[in-house]
Amino acid sequence: MSPGVNAPKDEIENGTVFAPQFDTNGLIPCITTSANNGDVLMFAFMNEEALQKTIETGEAWYWSRSRSELWHKGATSGMVQKVIEMKTDCDQDCLWISVEIAGTEAACHTGYQSCFYRSIPVGNKAAKDTILSFNKTEKVFDPKEIYKD
Amino acid sequence: MSPGVNAPKDEIENGTVFAPQFDTNGLIPCITTSANNGDVLMFAFMNEEALQKTIETGEAWYWSRSRSELWHKGATSGMVQKVIEMKTDCDQDCLWISVEIAGTEAACHTGYQSCFYRSIPVGNKAAKDTILSFNKTEKVFDPKEIYKD
Repeated sequence: MSPGVNAPKDEIENGTVFAPQFDTNGLIPCITTSANNGDVLMFAFMNEEALQKTIETGEAWYWSRSRSELWHKGATSGMVQKVIEMKTDCDQDCLWISVEIAGTEAACHTGYQSCFYRSIPVGNKAAKDTILSFNKTEKVFDPKEIYKD
Repeated sequence: MSPGVNAPKDEIENGTVFAPQFDTNGLIPCITTSANNGDVLMFAFMNEEALQKTIETGEAWYWSRSRSELWHKGATSGMVQKVIEMKTDCDQDCLWISVEIAGTEAACHTGYQSCFYRSIPVGNKAAKDTILSFNKTEKVFDPKEIYKD
């Protein structure tokens, strides 16, 4: 994938050569949505190896920043993400994958289906002391049972 | 919003205090989807001021990394983003906003409705020389007319 990384802006935006723009840490952000209902499930990063493995295997691989290791999503929980479609954005510094998930269809380590289980109220004059509201009421799995930690 | 920034992990993941985790550059990534059809429209960053303005005004404000300035999306093009819902993820280091857009409903400066107008083939053995395919055939506006640059 490296040949196009330093391609001119016009080629990056309007061309057909995949030229992923990794940041100074060698990472590119990835938005993961459900192929089932379109919800944003999670947000993570890929390094070049994770991206190559994702493309080659058709399953989502990420780079875990907290563990500093390659991360085959679902390897522990069984909830592997099958990539249905993968897209890049105009300046090729972000990826969007649409996935199907085996088992309970959950993507968040907390047990919720999506990591985005809390809403932030908008349109308030004051942004201080903002209180979140839960938009999902039930976890779909018990993380203690799945991860045994 | 600052009181919760250094909150314990359990409180950040399971609590109701909004504690956005800005990165070392003072930014938090934001995924923007269409309230109309659920598509991912764009991906950008907010700094604390952009986030506060978004919450207070109910319109999307970002931090432009290329221009190093606060960015009221749509101020030039007229395609302001009205925030219908705003969510944060488990570790509160990412935001997801669902928006309605005035006018032609476009979010990308190239003229496409979504920045994610090109697909990456998956499931191939070789990841080198990956060729993108356009998944949107028509731009919804002419950027030369809108931006006059």
